[in-house]
Amino acid sequence: MSPQQNLYELRTGIIGTGFIGPVHIEALRRLGVQVVALCDLPDRVEPAARKLGIPQTFSDYRKMLQSPGLDVVHITAPNRYHCEMSLAALEAGKHCVCEKPLAMNTRQTSKIVQRAAKSSAVFAVNYNVRFYPAVLQMRKLVSRGELGEIIHVNGSYMQDWLFKETDYNWRLLPAEGGKLRAVADIGTHWMDTVSFILDSKIISVFADLSTWHKTRKRPIGEIQTFANAGARVKYASYPVKTEDFASVLLEFGNGARGNLAVSQVAAGRKNCIRVEIYGSRKSVSWCSENPEFLRLGNRDGVNEVAVRGTQAFGPDVASYLDYPPGHVEGFPDTFKMLFRSVYSAIAGLPGEKFHATALDGHHEVAICEAILASHKNRRWIKV
Amino acid sequence: MSPQQNLYELRTGIIGTGFIGPVHIEALRRLGVQVVALCDLPDRVEPAARKLGIPQTFSDYRKMLQSPGLDVVHITAPNRYHCEMSLAALEAGKHCVCEKPLAMNTRQTSKIVQRAAKSSAVFAVNYNVRFYPAVLQMRKLVSRGELGEIIHVNGSYMQDWLFKETDYNWRLLPAEGGKLRAVADIGTHWMDTVSFILDSKIISVFADLSTWHKTRKRPIGEIQTFANAGARVKYASYPVKTEDFASVLLEFGNGARGNLAVSQVAAGRKNCIRVEIYGSRKSVSWCSENPEFLRLGNRDGVNEVAVRGTQAFGPDVASYLDYPPGHVEGFPDTFKMLFRSVYSAIAGLPGEKFHATALDGHHEVAICEAILASHKNRRWIKV
Amino acid sequence: MSPQQNLYELRTGIIGTGFIGPVHIEALRRLGVQVVALCDLPDRVEPAARKLGIPQTFSDYRKMLQSPGLDVVHITAPNRYHCEMSLAALEAGKHCVCEKPLAMNTRQTSKIVQRAAKSSAVFAVNYNVRFYPAVLQMRKLVSRGELGEIIHVNGSYMQDWLFKETDYNWRLLPAEGGKLRAVADIGTHWMDTVSFILDSKIISVFADLSTWHKTRKRPIGEIQTFANAGARVKYASYPVKTEDFASVLLEFGNGARGNLAVSQVAAGRKNCIRVEIYGSRKSVSWCSENPEFLRLGNRDGVNEVAVRGTQAFGPDVASYLDYPPGHVEGFPDTFKMLFRSVYSAIAGLPGEKFHATALDGHHEVAICEAILASHKNRRWIKV
Amino acid sequence: MSPQQNLYELRTGIIGTGFIGPVHIEALRRLGVQVVALCDLPDRVEPAARKLGIPQTFSDYRKMLQSPGLDVVHITAPNRYHCEMSLAALEAGKHCVCEKPLAMNTRQTSKIVQRAAKSSAVFAVNYNVRFYPAVLQMRKLVSRGELGEIIHVNGSYMQDWLFKETDYNWRLLPAEGGKLRAVADIGTHWMDTVSFILDSKIISVFADLSTWHKTRKRPIGEIQTFANAGARVKYASYPVKTEDFASVLLEFGNGARGNLAVSQVAAGRKNCIRVEIYGSRKSVSWCSENPEFLRLGNRDGVNEVAVRGTQAFGPDVASYLDYPPGHVEGFPDTFKMLFRSVYSAIAGLPGEKFHATALDGHHEVAICEAILASHKNRRWIKV
Repeated sequence: MSPQQNLYELRTGIIGTGFIGPVHIEALRRLGVQVVALCDLPDRVEPAARKLGIPQTFSDYRKMLQSPGLDVVHITAPNRYHCEMSLAALEAGKHCVCEKPLAMNTRQTSKIVQRAAKSSAVFAVNYNVRFYPAVLQMRKLVSRGELGEIIHVNGSYMQDWLFKETDYNWRLLPAEGGKLRAVADIGTHWMDTVSFILDSKIISVFADLSTWHKTRKRPIGEIQTFANAGARVKYASYPVKTEDFASVLLEFGNGARGNLAVSQVAAGRKNCIRVEIYGSRKSVSWCSENPEFLRLGNRDGVNEVAVRGTQAFGPDVASYLDYPPGHVEGFPDTFKMLFRSVYSAIAGLPGEKFHATALDGHHEVAICEAILASHKNRRWIKV
Repeated sequence: MSPQQNLYELRTGIIGTGFIGPVHIEALRRLGVQVVALCDLPDRVEPAARKLGIPQTFSDYRKMLQSPGLDVVHITAPNRYHCEMSLAALEAGKHCVCEKPLAMNTRQTSKIVQRAAKSSAVFAVNYNVRFYPAVLQMRKLVSRGELGEIIHVNGSYMQDWLFKETDYNWRLLPAEGGKLRAVADIGTHWMDTVSFILDSKIISVFADLSTWHKTRKRPIGEIQTFANAGARVKYASYPVKTEDFASVLLEFGNGARGNLAVSQVAAGRKNCIRVEIYGSRKSVSWCSENPEFLRLGNRDGVNEVAVRGTQAFGPDVASYLDYPPGHVEGFPDTFKMLFRSVYSAIAGLPGEKFHATALDGHHEVAICEAILASHKNRRWIKV
Repeated sequence: MSPQQNLYELRTGIIGTGFIGPVHIEALRRLGVQVVALCDLPDRVEPAARKLGIPQTFSDYRKMLQSPGLDVVHITAPNRYHCEMSLAALEAGKHCVCEKPLAMNTRQTSKIVQRAAKSSAVFAVNYNVRFYPAVLQMRKLVSRGELGEIIHVNGSYMQDWLFKETDYNWRLLPAEGGKLRAVADIGTHWMDTVSFILDSKIISVFADLSTWHKTRKRPIGEIQTFANAGARVKYASYPVKTEDFASVLLEFGNGARGNLAVSQVAAGRKNCIRVEIYGSRKSVSWCSENPEFLRLGNRDGVNEVAVRGTQAFGPDVASYLDYPPGHVEGFPDTFKMLFRSVYSAIAGLPGEKFHATALDGHHEVAICEAILASHKNRRWIKV
Repeated sequence: MSPQQNLYELRTGIIGTGFIGPVHIEALRRLGVQVVALCDLPDRVEPAARKLGIPQTFSDYRKMLQSPGLDVVHITAPNRYHCEMSLAALEAGKHCVCEKPLAMNTRQTSKIVQRAAKSSAVFAVNYNVRFYPAVLQMRKLVSRGELGEIIHVNGSYMQDWLFKETDYNWRLLPAEGGKLRAVADIGTHWMDTVSFILDSKIISVFADLSTWHKTRKRPIGEIQTFANAGARVKYASYPVKTEDFASVLLEFGNGARGNLAVSQVAAGRKNCIRVEIYGSRKSVSWCSENPEFLRLGNRDGVNEVAVRGTQAFGPDVASYLDYPPGHVEGFPDTFKMLFRSVYSAIAGLPGEKFHATALDGHHEVAICEAILASHKNRRWIKV
């Protein structure tokens, strides 16, 4: 009996129908998982369910959690709901995939960690960047010692979708997104990814945060993440306190030092994650805009380019890539692979799992709090 | 009512369980299409169906065609079966997606074209490269005149999976794959793509074909496309007459001239399609290894890079891309988009369709025959 | 005593003050060679000598050849003068560097080859592309067998400086530039370079030539190569018969096959030479726009990037590169290195020499004649 | 009368014959400047002068300064001599080009600034990176407002020539190179370049410095910068206190914030300078490994690539580039252009000058002192 077929029995419900909910649904379907229920506000859930082809709908997530035959819940609602939903899902005995950040603060995330520790359910936080095969492979390069000791890590996460003062999204509002924005929304992806690669936590931070648009203009009416504003929109001004860009210096538990630049006002960069890891034997760099290639640097010999899926890429990550080399796997595929990890864990299948746990999610929120404290106090802060 | 939801009603059966069959299945599931039946040789179909989660199985494709409630058939069996299966599917009144090449020769493809012309069913040939959003966009650039008149087109399709004399696949055998190999298998992807972009057929060809490994070694036992041979394999020698690499010069109906290099023995190139189109106003180039970017060349002004999904990329192809700019869509996504085109046509939904027709598939086979004749006669041949 | 210091004694005269003459002068000065004389039409030579800081001037090159103390002559006048000047320089016992093409036809070039063979002087043709360190290194990779046997070679040489019908240069006129233009002017650079790398002559060609602008507009008054036309220019129409772009298929003496695309109407490509060499062990590719890097392709292992000047780049070419890795050497440096080869030969210094000889220059002209014959007869032609 | 010819009258002496002295000499010769004198230790200067073809030699730089007919002095001796040599050159009324850093500390550099202010001689510090045409062009983009207001600047300067514990150079010794190393040697190039582009000084810094090799092994005998150690070398251990890598956060006078990563232990990076400038209208990025291209980022429109020397590149920098687009100018060319700026100033020629002044050189040393103080105190320090 093939491993994947066990996944065909699993039944999943999704809370949230914004940008990322449908991404989850599509990825689950690629795995053959049955997406049976959808939950959102009453006026949203019905049209979304029709559009997405989901049979059952709920406007109260607690009711969905009580519906029979549901194995797994995905939380893709705005950040401020993550805590109560995560706790309720665990309480209901459901396996759970929660979008990042895990919750609004460490008070909340600690609760989730504690509750998850008492549960036999699988609880995952949706740090999907881990699941680019090149990222998994970087982790293997580090763990096999192929890079030597890690000296320093540099990189950035750059976007431009909030470049204009008229660009609007709920993440801009602290009450919905949290006190940090660029760092929390995309910076934590980078930090989780690098911690994952190094298998070493961030233990100390220094941060310089800046808000470029201190006042923004909000279109009257709500807008989806990444959706383009139409013409003839009316705007209302509002103050913005969350950061548009940031520099964060890092110290890892293994002694490596890091330097991360984050921006959501970087014209021309759509969603560009760059990681450069410098070791005492070799360096490796990777960019999400061209995700199939790992670039390895050597002092004396040639530099190298490892292509996803080749023999040189290594067998360790073979179960988390599906297409032959040269047939680019992209962003949507990272969700498929993350869910393969989670659902294989749920089904009790063998093989290494790589998804972020509640503790990983908690740690990212703790780092964010340290970053905010560092910025305010203009000094290094321990996480 | 949302367009996509109509697709949830459609029920599909797949013939063939090799490398490409599961690719079709995954893509169909992303669209919410129900894949209900699978057909292959008796010893293959059952384990494949379990692995892939398909409820019904057939070892006789004609029986599958008669099963009730089947709307669409995908033919992913080896090339030599394409003709009879296509004709049978059309006869059974099924919509049909046939893998390329459409059949073994123009005698066969002509029959399919004639039969399809008499049918109200949708018949598509699986030239998926058309469905990279960048390729769709190149077609728009040409049709809107943004490149001016097309002067010349250069490019290549390079692979290395048949680089070694011990690399084996059924495509190496003329009886299964046809008299042309590199040109037919991958060269036709390039030629279909460029004809599609230019909206102009290839009318004349000059070809230089070469077989590097005139003798190859076949492992005893069959091997799947792109699967790596294991250790300690026993080999039997066999002569190879199909070409390992080729240069093909082209004349298009619109007067543009083309130059295509094809190779399956190009060390280090995994699956690299490159297209460069030089117009009287502007040039554009694209490479499948980094598919999100179109590179536009200007004589006096700056050169340009158009990123998939941005405003600059143009609204024309918006319904054939799903993820925001910077969130790379890759090879698997082209299948989703191709099937979106086909199934939207089946469901009678509005919007432009871009999939290759039986006539397009026939034309590619006709070009292959002209290429073979040109090589043998060492002169230009009209298609 | 250091090798280079011998060069400080050598005294050189330059014939021609267009685009490329000053390039020669600057490169010679980098080597410490004394440029003592300049020759051009009377109205040109004086201002040029003042601008370039050359003490002696001549309006008759024969007089310059008779001036005492001159060791070397560089011919940078238009193509139609190359033959008589080369013969006269050899007759006068001068060492000679002649710009490519060596002359207008093989009748002329044969004479030069014969005359040079009887002379003890060094005679070089200015194929500077050989002297990118990466190109020298590719030659070494081939000769050391690191690529294995050479299967096929692909590439292109693309420019856009003759993109517009109003772009003008004497090369457009067959009487001054010859019957071939794009192929002769830039295509021969590519063919010489690849023959040099493979150490194997081109023995057979098939060509498809095209003239995009069948009529061009010439500004009244002369214009220098690469100079931009100013505003308010008056134009006169004239017919053009030389090719704007071409595809050339090649057979090399060692059995390798080649495919070259050449264009001077390729919008956005300023001066882009690309070479891809596919061997039975490894492939290598290089592009002149980013000349410091060789990209090596492997079937099973990682692909590789060799950086100019590193240990991995190999010691063989160390005497033809001056700056450490990462400190880019570019186009001007190729002239310095070519002249280092020539003048080291003149000075009788040890070390390998790589410059093109009269015979090499003759062979390129012979290939051009074969290309023209192939295009006219639409068939393969032996060189 | 052409501007450049005035430079042919100027006579220059060089102090120092290490890696960079010959680079100066070659660049001066390209401009036609007469290099007439060379100065170094007695056992070094004679062989160097023979090798480099310089007629006069000195082992005492003060004597060279008194020799008649010398117009300009270039100081390319180790850092600790810069101050006394600069002051002596100014005292002797010579024009002076001093290698960076200007001196060992601001006490010294202040003296030079004061002395230079009283002199009518031209005094330049050799920050050559400014003279990549792409860098000059970035300055123009900023000054013309094409990028809008500058939001943030990111980048790095990475090398690997001190990667191994056995890599040795005098810069590793604080007594010769100063208390900072990676930041002073290469970081100041980046900071000078970005300040130059923005036309805005760095006013505040935060730094995190690290020494990877706390003990290194020194070969017995001296070694030149960038020279490779031979085999069978004997080593003596010595402690190292200067930093191998660093992160520096910056505040510019115009309000822009910066993030710089510097490393000399970055395997595979030979000499890689990267600059990314994010403005309120547009972004621009550049990398010294591929110096001909500026990459411009836009939020809504296409991204852009401006090629050196094209019309799109702008006329402002035309006098500081010599070769047509596509004919790569590299590292050696930046020296030529820097000296063109300096010597044009000396000759009183019109046109904009871009070389760094004594005050610029002083400011870089002041920044280094602030960086060291920031690292020690773990807080932001004003420059």
